[in-house]
Amino acid sequence: MKAEIISVGTELLLGHTVNTDAAHVARELAAFGIDLEHVQTVGDNAARLEAALREALARSSLVICTGGLGPTEDDLTKETVARVAGRPLMEDAESLARLREYFGTRPMGENQFKQALLPRGAEAFPNSVGTAPGCAVPVAEDKFVLLLPGPPSELLPMLEQSVRPFLGRRTGAVIVSAMIRTFGIGEGAAAERIRDLMQGGNPTAATYATEGEMFVRVTAKAADEAAAQALAAPLVRAVCERLGDVVYGVDVPSLEAVVVRGLAAVGLHLVTAESCTGGLLAKRITDQPGSSAVFETGLVTYANASKVRLLGVPEDMLAAHGAVSPQTAAFMAEGARLRQGGDLGLGITGIAGPDGGTPEKPVGLVYIALSAPDGVWLRVMRPQGRYLGRSWTRRRAASHALDLVRRRLAGLPLEAAYAKDAASVDDEPIPPAF
Amino acid sequence: MKAEIISVGTELLLGHTVNTDAAHVARELAAFGIDLEHVQTVGDNAARLEAALREALARSSLVICTGGLGPTEDDLTKETVARVAGRPLMEDAESLARLREYFGTRPMGENQFKQALLPRGAEAFPNSVGTAPGCAVPVAEDKFVLLLPGPPSELLPMLEQSVRPFLGRRTGAVIVSAMIRTFGIGEGAAAERIRDLMQGGNPTAATYATEGEMFVRVTAKAADEAAAQALAAPLVRAVCERLGDVVYGVDVPSLEAVVVRGLAAVGLHLVTAESCTGGLLAKRITDQPGSSAVFETGLVTYANASKVRLLGVPEDMLAAHGAVSPQTAAFMAEGARLRQGGDLGLGITGIAGPDGGTPEKPVGLVYIALSAPDGVWLRVMRPQGRYLGRSWTRRRAASHALDLVRRRLAGLPLEAAYAKDAASVDDEPIPPAF
Repeated sequence: MKAEIISVGTELLLGHTVNTDAAHVARELAAFGIDLEHVQTVGDNAARLEAALREALARSSLVICTGGLGPTEDDLTKETVARVAGRPLMEDAESLARLREYFGTRPMGENQFKQALLPRGAEAFPNSVGTAPGCAVPVAEDKFVLLLPGPPSELLPMLEQSVRPFLGRRTGAVIVSAMIRTFGIGEGAAAERIRDLMQGGNPTAATYATEGEMFVRVTAKAADEAAAQALAAPLVRAVCERLGDVVYGVDVPSLEAVVVRGLAAVGLHLVTAESCTGGLLAKRITDQPGSSAVFETGLVTYANASKVRLLGVPEDMLAAHGAVSPQTAAFMAEGARLRQGGDLGLGITGIAGPDGGTPEKPVGLVYIALSAPDGVWLRVMRPQGRYLGRSWTRRRAASHALDLVRRRLAGLPLEAAYAKDAASVDDEPIPPAF
Repeated sequence: MKAEIISVGTELLLGHTVNTDAAHVARELAAFGIDLEHVQTVGDNAARLEAALREALARSSLVICTGGLGPTEDDLTKETVARVAGRPLMEDAESLARLREYFGTRPMGENQFKQALLPRGAEAFPNSVGTAPGCAVPVAEDKFVLLLPGPPSELLPMLEQSVRPFLGRRTGAVIVSAMIRTFGIGEGAAAERIRDLMQGGNPTAATYATEGEMFVRVTAKAADEAAAQALAAPLVRAVCERLGDVVYGVDVPSLEAVVVRGLAAVGLHLVTAESCTGGLLAKRITDQPGSSAVFETGLVTYANASKVRLLGVPEDMLAAHGAVSPQTAAFMAEGARLRQGGDLGLGITGIAGPDGGTPEKPVGLVYIALSAPDGVWLRVMRPQGRYLGRSWTRRRAASHALDLVRRRLAGLPLEAAYAKDAASVDDEPIPPAF
């Protein structure tokens, strides 16, 4: 089956909005093995949209339009498709009921009612977030135009709830995918380890690098969900085995989510003490709803005086080794745990840059410590190649801290030799006795 | 002048990459007043690219291709354009010299040399970041195809360094723009205030809403930069006057940057005490290089016990009013300032959600306090419509705290009645005597 996307919206042609919708739709089509050969963008202009539609329908059996479904006069995708398909707009009772429910007691303008009109014979796709429903409009034997809303917050649920089942029925296929998430290995090193596993056509495995983490997505297509799951499962297992304990979860939201859940499961409390990350670690932990069960206190001790006062870091030690040292990280983690009454303490100190580096302590150098009743463990981020920026350095340092907790909770060795990072930073564990 | 964009790359059709290039190019065209009516995306396929090119050239006098300029066999944009333009590829001496310089002593493969070939008569656009130069290929009288690299890191400098001057020569114009940034007014209310100022064709003013803030971009076009600046300046002033003291800066990076600079300018230190924002406020402050001059300590007091221990919030007051109350926010800000030795203290407490709300204290309710030697000021974020999520609520609460400091530093009234927020949250100041 061949498909095309037509993105509708003058805001796209002015560059006010980036066309993320096309990528979201494209990924769905690719998962079903549907060939996408053209994407077109046109403005809120009926004549040009009609020309684009006719051109697309001449080439392809599935045309997906995003945008232009709202209540304003600019929104004319539905009217144009109705005309091209020869299917006049009619009131859809269910869509009207949903619209009334959405507005409740608030007044509904004449233009809002327009959203309950669909081309005759179209299959409605309910909008679980906004007001404008989508739909599938039959145009000819085995030829359809899908109308989908432009805002990604409305498009994404509709893709999952309505478009995926629709495509499944047309292709007789169900797609499942699993995301294997790792921390502590670069994309190049990971691809090297699973190269042969990435050659298959169904199921497929592909690597994604993002913000200092590396993911592998496994996707399988089969006649029903159970068969697709059965196809995907062995590849998921194989990828996890090859990558080893850098895998922190499959289909989990984030490293911090795994850490918060892990702490909650065993009833442990974590205290953080941050210098160069300046609150980012605490922020990532408290991004998780329910984090209050495992996190009561975080300290941002940006100045040396704060490290001394709040964490009890010894002044003479600071004078001897400096604020950016494994010793300071260890004292911060210990002080956080002991003075603030936690079960585990984390300390981070480093030079996030872009200024403040010296030949001995360059920009990008960060020490991360985990304190527990039975010892302190350390890691160092040591820049080797190009400095990747303040934001990257801070995020990666916070991830290292979370990963130390993750590994401790999982009973994994904290001194493990980590794979060299593809992103030009060499993150090493340090033996406890520095 | 009419223009079209053709984005080339199979990764776009698979949804692996979002087409940000099209938005970058679209903004450049819009700034020069060039009409963009179509954007097409095709894969790495010569026949479909050629068809798209011929279609675009029939409609428009400027066609801009992004992607497919690299050294691999997939990269065939240049070859295809050369064929359509009837201008065979020839070695460009300057491009070859730049390529040799880029590689230095490293070996250069045969395929790398291919990048120094350009269609005969094309104007080269040097690539300041990567290896593949761009170019402008004349196709007919006053008809051009521009070839630009796909990676945004290469595209963006080339747009600024080569494409903008090229378009300036073709249109006889130079473009300047200014971004007016605000906090405390919604997009709808802002547009209402400046509606007449947004009607002009040159200079133009347009609103942008993003992450709870609202920006106005003013763009002017003239024969040279001084004339463009002279055209833009009165409109920038007029927009700032109409919007009033919700404007926190023109062409500044962020609210936190303005606050950190403002504190540094007068030598004041800030201490933060966060509950529901969980470190986000400290994180945003320390995102700024050099923030150590104004920020020494931040406390994340997520639990009541932490608020009592670290900030001296009275236990009986917590019992009487609850952790989410204007009283607690005020005690947190006071405790932060007095106990941690700052000049100004900020306190934030609220219910970020999605859980934890009650009828009296709903999800989204947040109190924000600023403590100074001469008093305490408070704001409340009170949800009125749809809950916009944990992340939005936290970000907006941190912005309110920063805005309180910004207004104090600027000598603005802290009790000012704020415009109702378009994003369904009513953010009110509270009189100091609650």
